[in-house]
Amino acid sequence: MGVPRGVDKPSGFGDGGNARPSGPTRKVVELLALAGISVNGPNPWDLKVHDPRFFRRVLATGNLGAGEAYMDGWWDVDALDEFFARVARAGLTEHVGGLRTNLLALSGRPVNLQTQARPKQVVERHYSPGNDLYQAMLGQHMQYSCAYWRDAETLDQAQANTLHLICRKLGLRPGMRLLDVGGGFGSLARCAAKEYGCEVVAYNISREQAAYARDLCQGLPVRIEEKDYRSVVHEPQQFDRIVSVRFFEHVGYKNYRAFLGFVRSCLKDGGLFLLHTIGVNNSRTVGDAWMDKYIFPGGMLPSMAQLIACTEGRWIVEDWHNFGPDYDRTMMAWWQNFERGWPELRSRYGDRFYRMWRYYLLSHAAGFRVRTFQLWQVVLSKGDIEGYTSVR
Amino acid sequence: MGVPRGVDKPSGFGDGGNARPSGPTRKVVELLALAGISVNGPNPWDLKVHDPRFFRRVLATGNLGAGEAYMDGWWDVDALDEFFARVARAGLTEHVGGLRTNLLALSGRPVNLQTQARPKQVVERHYSPGNDLYQAMLGQHMQYSCAYWRDAETLDQAQANTLHLICRKLGLRPGMRLLDVGGGFGSLARCAAKEYGCEVVAYNISREQAAYARDLCQGLPVRIEEKDYRSVVHEPQQFDRIVSVRFFEHVGYKNYRAFLGFVRSCLKDGGLFLLHTIGVNNSRTVGDAWMDKYIFPGGMLPSMAQLIACTEGRWIVEDWHNFGPDYDRTMMAWWQNFERGWPELRSRYGDRFYRMWRYYLLSHAAGFRVRTFQLWQVVLSKGDIEGYTSVR
Repeated sequence: MGVPRGVDKPSGFGDGGNARPSGPTRKVVELLALAGISVNGPNPWDLKVHDPRFFRRVLATGNLGAGEAYMDGWWDVDALDEFFARVARAGLTEHVGGLRTNLLALSGRPVNLQTQARPKQVVERHYSPGNDLYQAMLGQHMQYSCAYWRDAETLDQAQANTLHLICRKLGLRPGMRLLDVGGGFGSLARCAAKEYGCEVVAYNISREQAAYARDLCQGLPVRIEEKDYRSVVHEPQQFDRIVSVRFFEHVGYKNYRAFLGFVRSCLKDGGLFLLHTIGVNNSRTVGDAWMDKYIFPGGMLPSMAQLIACTEGRWIVEDWHNFGPDYDRTMMAWWQNFERGWPELRSRYGDRFYRMWRYYLLSHAAGFRVRTFQLWQVVLSKGDIEGYTSVR
Repeated sequence: MGVPRGVDKPSGFGDGGNARPSGPTRKVVELLALAGISVNGPNPWDLKVHDPRFFRRVLATGNLGAGEAYMDGWWDVDALDEFFARVARAGLTEHVGGLRTNLLALSGRPVNLQTQARPKQVVERHYSPGNDLYQAMLGQHMQYSCAYWRDAETLDQAQANTLHLICRKLGLRPGMRLLDVGGGFGSLARCAAKEYGCEVVAYNISREQAAYARDLCQGLPVRIEEKDYRSVVHEPQQFDRIVSVRFFEHVGYKNYRAFLGFVRSCLKDGGLFLLHTIGVNNSRTVGDAWMDKYIFPGGMLPSMAQLIACTEGRWIVEDWHNFGPDYDRTMMAWWQNFERGWPELRSRYGDRFYRMWRYYLLSHAAGFRVRTFQLWQVVLSKGDIEGYTSVR
């Protein structure tokens, strides 16, 4: 990793004084220069260092250290999304210490990071802060997944697009039974029931989301179960259609085959399954260390190869739609909403949360912008339908 | 495989006489019954056996023997496509001797069946019979690949659809340079040059096709090279767009990585590559034995897993469109054209060719009908474009 050794005395770098920059400082400055980023420079994507211990910390602990140093207020960037985009385009994260990520990767192989017991932990960490956060951020539809911006001007329009896109891709018709694995805040269940005449059952282990969804879907043929999706085995009937939005990211590659097998067992013959998930270009076994610690414990993003390895011989891929760049725009809209709503949220969440959330949203927006992340909607059948007409 | 042993005397099965059906006869009759097919029964998909040696031959030599026995006139079916569809739906091919296929599979692993020397053999076997055959069969556009039937009534309309679908998916604009790997009879080159203002270079080792294409594209900025595609390395410039239609089926899984690497090296930054290929649901290393011997020597159909394994880390899949069932309709249209044109072709090709071609077209139509085969149009980028809007 080329991490300079020796004691690194804080140097007051950037103050124009006489102190000679330390090894770590020089190294970070050189690396960032490769990405067109200056330290304390004039561009919106340039880095402002408030605490010079930053340099050493980021070299030693990579993404995790950079993120924690950001949360601690050691550094700042006006246009954090553009900073991340430049870092990614220059491939800088490969230069600095992915030590924690590497350790995670090692543990990811023998250990199943997504056991039955862990989902609750994810939910408690990520979804339980309170619906007020998501209400401020997600807009009218409370849809915590990629919006489809075709012909849309606003986030609300784009999220309405997504809901209808999913329903149209599934070919929902009155009387169909739809299973929603994950369920979110219930907007998809509501749309499928109200506008497509379906009966919907959603499984979601988040108490807050389930309560919100029940309220949202009142009076409609929607049943929200606050249970792990595997409890679906107790449902008396199979489903005509199954959908899973922003859920597969929590499943873990060791469980893809089991998950897809489970879904298949719940799907009627002639049915369709729509999987909406973020994906990555290269197969990995763990997620980013900072994300793992602060945002989605045990989360990992699938590659096409990992997903396809688990569909072969059991599912036919009827359609594979990639609209990753729409997630950049979605994340930026969430960020703007979050920032606008922050004065109301601040007393409850605190400034460290604000920095954490900013880091999460803007680094992800950048990931989609530079095409490190993809957004996939994959339509799968058992191979027992005559054909499928893909929808855009 | 459960093949009965012992001498199998032709039994005159089906004549209602006293002769007791032999072991092989009984076995085949039982297997076919699982698929709802009777021997000498009244349905259009029922089997008419003209030579009772058929039973033993098909058990001993599987698909290869069945096809050869058909070519020899030992058996017939009125609706051969529906016969194959029923056989496939019942999974019968797994019951009978895939011995020759198994041997091929063994040889497929250590041996590269698609060496530099072999393409010429494929072309001589398959494409050199004469353009009259293809002119009779393919319709006005001479497009030897799946037609896109959305909003089309006739094969010609559907093939025009395909040409425009490809051009629109590639986002062709005036002045762009398009490389066509394979080239066919030149209809795509012509369309891209004439209707989208592109400069086209096509590589095709078939003399007959190259001559036809040159004639078709006269006066347009189209250059047809009668050379192996790897000669593209001598082109002075990279291309804005690359397309390959019905070519990947000849490449062989050992060469996918090299092929895709080669295409990538010929593609400008910011470019797009559209791969149009038949695919299968399960990874294999060889094709069907009969197809290999009579139709496409060394051909093999990719699985998604095999293809994706060779794109990871190098390409981003911008779109994956599966319209396999359209190939069923296309093959049936080709079959009707072929049959209509046969009186003109007969003296040149002979009756055994007729039976071979019928077997080829109708077995393939059935393969798409029962979803054993898929038709994929995959749009790939180097990951250096802002995004891609998929087209249907």
